[in-house]
Amino acid sequence: MKDLNQKLERAFNPRTVAVVGDKRAMGYLWLNALKDFVGKIYSVQISEDEIPGIEALGIPNYMSLLDIPDEVDYVVCAVGRAVSPRIVADCVRKGVTAVTLFTSGFAETEEEEGVRLQQELGDMARKAGLLLVGPNCMGIYNPGLGLRQNAEQPWGEAGNVGFISQSGTHCINFSHLAYVHGVRCSKAVSYGNAEVLDVDDYLDYMTNDSQTEVIGMYVEGPRDGRRFFDALRRATRLKPVVVWKGGRTEAGARAIYSHTAALATEDALWNAAMRQAGAVTADSLEEIVDVVKGLLYIKPGTGRRVGLVAMTGGQSVIIADAFGRTDLEVPLLTPASYEKLASFFNIIGGSYRNPLDAGGTVLMGFHMGNLQRMLDILEEDANVDAVVLESAATFLKSHRLMTRTLLDNLLDFVSDYKERCQKPFLMILQPWHLEGEMVKIRTKFLQRGIATFAGFQQGANALSKVIDYHRFRAGLD
Amino acid sequence: MKDLNQKLERAFNPRTVAVVGDKRAMGYLWLNALKDFVGKIYSVQISEDEIPGIEALGIPNYMSLLDIPDEVDYVVCAVGRAVSPRIVADCVRKGVTAVTLFTSGFAETEEEEGVRLQQELGDMARKAGLLLVGPNCMGIYNPGLGLRQNAEQPWGEAGNVGFISQSGTHCINFSHLAYVHGVRCSKAVSYGNAEVLDVDDYLDYMTNDSQTEVIGMYVEGPRDGRRFFDALRRATRLKPVVVWKGGRTEAGARAIYSHTAALATEDALWNAAMRQAGAVTADSLEEIVDVVKGLLYIKPGTGRRVGLVAMTGGQSVIIADAFGRTDLEVPLLTPASYEKLASFFNIIGGSYRNPLDAGGTVLMGFHMGNLQRMLDILEEDANVDAVVLESAATFLKSHRLMTRTLLDNLLDFVSDYKERCQKPFLMILQPWHLEGEMVKIRTKFLQRGIATFAGFQQGANALSKVIDYHRFRAGLD
Repeated sequence: MKDLNQKLERAFNPRTVAVVGDKRAMGYLWLNALKDFVGKIYSVQISEDEIPGIEALGIPNYMSLLDIPDEVDYVVCAVGRAVSPRIVADCVRKGVTAVTLFTSGFAETEEEEGVRLQQELGDMARKAGLLLVGPNCMGIYNPGLGLRQNAEQPWGEAGNVGFISQSGTHCINFSHLAYVHGVRCSKAVSYGNAEVLDVDDYLDYMTNDSQTEVIGMYVEGPRDGRRFFDALRRATRLKPVVVWKGGRTEAGARAIYSHTAALATEDALWNAAMRQAGAVTADSLEEIVDVVKGLLYIKPGTGRRVGLVAMTGGQSVIIADAFGRTDLEVPLLTPASYEKLASFFNIIGGSYRNPLDAGGTVLMGFHMGNLQRMLDILEEDANVDAVVLESAATFLKSHRLMTRTLLDNLLDFVSDYKERCQKPFLMILQPWHLEGEMVKIRTKFLQRGIATFAGFQQGANALSKVIDYHRFRAGLD
Repeated sequence: MKDLNQKLERAFNPRTVAVVGDKRAMGYLWLNALKDFVGKIYSVQISEDEIPGIEALGIPNYMSLLDIPDEVDYVVCAVGRAVSPRIVADCVRKGVTAVTLFTSGFAETEEEEGVRLQQELGDMARKAGLLLVGPNCMGIYNPGLGLRQNAEQPWGEAGNVGFISQSGTHCINFSHLAYVHGVRCSKAVSYGNAEVLDVDDYLDYMTNDSQTEVIGMYVEGPRDGRRFFDALRRATRLKPVVVWKGGRTEAGARAIYSHTAALATEDALWNAAMRQAGAVTADSLEEIVDVVKGLLYIKPGTGRRVGLVAMTGGQSVIIADAFGRTDLEVPLLTPASYEKLASFFNIIGGSYRNPLDAGGTVLMGFHMGNLQRMLDILEEDANVDAVVLESAATFLKSHRLMTRTLLDNLLDFVSDYKERCQKPFLMILQPWHLEGEMVKIRTKFLQRGIATFAGFQQGANALSKVIDYHRFRAGLD
């Protein structure tokens, strides 16, 4: 166990990487992906037609792994499946720590030859103590080292989120989408058919990795449910784990078998196991990014009663519906709060129950004073456990207060509030037609430590799941 | 009835508009909103402090509606609530067709004086046959005439979608968000407290309006459920109606009462009524835009069996799950189709059941030939009623084929396919980190008549609802 962890530490932090079988027809997928790798990189390619192209990339090529005049920590193998046993044998002889088999055509084909070959590769690796990642996968991603899965993946800045994915696409897409939501990967792995290393091995590694504060994962089917469940329980005691399960419908179950030869789990059983293990669940890439963002940026809290502030009456209705659809509550405030609100709301009436409709105080007056008083009242209110503020990005952009935009003012204002407020706090910031500028606007809030969500339901779901996790950690529920 | 429709036609197509009570402190909200109005515009403002500012905008100001030396078709009234009865009385005397009361502070406050005042205004208007829109609303939007609700709303090009909204925010946001999704409004109205004209009146008008092909609406609570239901039935027989209901949760119900004094309807009752009336439902602004887009761009069809094509194994699983969660089916193809597929798929196996995983044919080879064969097989397959293609925008952008981008090739290719294919067809095009460029990319597809959706679940839900509507029209279910 300890040995495996040390080997994984080497595999995720290799000093030397070799790519076997990359070629022009693949657009030098792997050699390009590794062009910024901070360690040493070698190519292995025997085709005379391919070698000049590879050398033109400035990468030394050898006819065999065994010829490389260096220790090799990590190998990416992109040869056809028939040749792959020879390469794995070379990895063993070379004393490589880990090999990723990008090659597909194994158990996922349901074909006898593919199943047999995968078994053969697995037996060789297991016997030799070689870490085999895959087959049928994109392998290891360590952005801090420039160790990437394709040439467009973000790199340079190591983050604090680990991602473990049975799908290469979802692993790469997570790294991209997360990046523009202020969520940076510490490490990630796409592990495909999981012949030797399975999800629980990677999960234990991320659990022990001090750089990783939150773990996300996409799984189709763990080979050993009990081991997965135990690893999950070990992990969730220390850090949040968000699990996105593929193949939850009948059609999806058929697809996971074709994809990674994974078997479906009954839905109710899966949900119960996740709840018991204290894992948070998500059902799409967008959702897992939102939930991880919430876990990183929203202050911990265990109470389910939310105080909501929206900018107009129409948004008040919709924010109430969205939070009302989750397991969160939208309570009435204390009488003391209503008294305070009455001192500055123009019209005594229903428009400041909960949600508070800030329209009258902000939209028309263009000033923050009343909004601040409303948020402070929610911070102090004993009926409220968490605070949510809605603001239209459109509106922020189109209004100026003297030389500053309303956006600048709101940024200062909400970051002060987040510092002051002991309760979980988040914002809903809908893009509308500003879609094209939202990455910039959202990033400004994230830089101040404020999580924003693009829709009411997304924000409500994320908060609900963040609170679920902290309740689990606190032994509640 | 016919008379009302004629008056509404005048109200939605005014030749002359007067704004009463706009001022600097409101940022000349209404006068700016109307700056591109193609007809004539007047201001009514009695404050000596305000008149120079208004005249500086180039808009003639009068001390009273009655002083305007012109017929006035439509008035926007933005005075305080206490003054509003005098303005409505002037509208009656002037023979105005319709007045929008932007003013709030009426029945939605739950206050005696507000309720009484609203009743008084309503009685005056009803007696005189004056169309009163609101109070507490943003009134009429006719983009073709530059008649807008704020200065940033799109205008110039009249579209084919009518929108009826109890909330001003949602009306304006619909016009914005719809616009960047290739959905253009013919006309829209925000109608607030619905004292005189209610949702059924506007619905009948849009039903009869030849410019309007699809109707969307946001309602909190119709004052007369039976009239609303009857109007819906009249409408859905002629064109699709998509209804977004606010106040569906307990917290939301409290909020709609504060917002427009609307009473909540029991959820199950509402759903049954919508189904019976043949209305399509939506639960958020994003969803109503997606469903309307689907109704406009996807060919009509009544069968629920979808054939799916994804670019990778991971996406195959997730697209299957998304469509599997709706009332659509993801069937196996006919044996004839599998035979055809076997002729060009490299590996005989499970990866081309349904979804078809196009990865091997497209991602690696960068050519469209096999993708075309796959889509043609789905078009011909008797088990398939509708076809869905997933493609990563990221991927489209980063790969080039000689001088053309893969995006250009795919555009030609899918627009040819859409022409040829008799079955409903749509695309899933997820933005990922290209978020900032998606408006441009999505627009290119929309210009070729192809609806794209930003996520699997959004696309699945939209297709399911489009098919529901066509089944209703065909007398199925």
